[in-house]
Amino acid sequence: MEFHTDFKPITVQPQEIEERSFEMITEELGEHPFTPEQYPVVQRVIHASADFELGRSLVFHPKAIEAGIEAIRAGCKIVADVQMVQVGISKPRIEKFGGSVHVYISDKDVMEEAKRLNTTRAIISIRKAILEAEGGVYAIGNAPTALLELIRLVKEGAAKPGLIIGVPVGFVSAAESKEELAKLDIPFITNIGRKGGSPVAVAALNAISLMAERLG
Amino acid sequence: MEFHTDFKPITVQPQEIEERSFEMITEELGEHPFTPEQYPVVQRVIHASADFELGRSLVFHPKAIEAGIEAIRAGCKIVADVQMVQVGISKPRIEKFGGSVHVYISDKDVMEEAKRLNTTRAIISIRKAILEAEGGVYAIGNAPTALLELIRLVKEGAAKPGLIIGVPVGFVSAAESKEELAKLDIPFITNIGRKGGSPVAVAALNAISLMAERLG
Repeated sequence: MEFHTDFKPITVQPQEIEERSFEMITEELGEHPFTPEQYPVVQRVIHASADFELGRSLVFHPKAIEAGIEAIRAGCKIVADVQMVQVGISKPRIEKFGGSVHVYISDKDVMEEAKRLNTTRAIISIRKAILEAEGGVYAIGNAPTALLELIRLVKEGAAKPGLIIGVPVGFVSAAESKEELAKLDIPFITNIGRKGGSPVAVAALNAISLMAERLG
Repeated sequence: MEFHTDFKPITVQPQEIEERSFEMITEELGEHPFTPEQYPVVQRVIHASADFELGRSLVFHPKAIEAGIEAIRAGCKIVADVQMVQVGISKPRIEKFGGSVHVYISDKDVMEEAKRLNTTRAIISIRKAILEAEGGVYAIGNAPTALLELIRLVKEGAAKPGLIIGVPVGFVSAAESKEELAKLDIPFITNIGRKGGSPVAVAALNAISLMAERLG
């Protein structure tokens, strides 16, 4: 492959951009209700969305950060609801501790079972996940039905996630699914309202894995 | 794989959720300045972000929709700036016309060249894209440096994209890169401000490929 190597290089580095962005976020956010452990998640969510309202709408179970760090350091599996979340998650920090990132929604057995039961692939992918990734961290950015199914399985005692990051975006069931998640007394990170999405789930997970890595 | 098949299926279908969401968006958005050709893009961006402010911030070159439909129907290549955009794009509608979706940012030659020139992989990935995907549609949701480089190459006459969807999110250079894009007299879709992101780029591209498909 021949590049046009006579082009003048632009010297801004991604690392510099990120650092400057984080400073701007802290400055513009001002006072906030988050703990020092929660703040890196809030900061990275605002960085990924440029949306302070979305950052301020985050809600944390008191044990969320601690539990997420513990699960990642124990090498637990990470379950993404959709491929956009899966590809966004920084892998080296997960793999360093023996973990791995999974998405089941396009698996052949999941598609067949969803068709047979006339339900969504998102729901069936969660039923597969609880069998394949016991104690794992769930990053749900897209599918409210996946989050609602996971909540139901937790209530039934069939699922024991290490942490649920549940931030689906949308107009139908998204806000409601997050309200249900916020009622559970297990580690969760969620937000209030319709906003959310794959980059929000990715940002939260990556912030936690970075904290896990920095513990050494 | 053995599923818990005794679970009661939830019968909400993704198609129903989408239709109901689109109705809600049209109702809540009310009056807007967009043409009937532009509106499906606006609607799908709001659907992906639950953010009316973001939807209203979209800016279209007068020929954007027409040019995008034409490029897709001609089987032109689609270039995504990052993998999150690449995986989000609906492939069957692109492939039906002989097109394909590409992301160059993690290619070995791109990484080596970026290192050699001490610049970003995003910039070098665009230099590769203009050689590999002449006349293609660019979907840039993440990297302002990629968008700025593409704009520079257009101005120099080295790049002739069919359509640029340029909606990077962020605090450093994102808004500025989109202002520069909006000054070009070539087909573009962008938005004003810091917001944007991979789901926005994906939503815009998918809305256009759906229009391309519906022409038969």
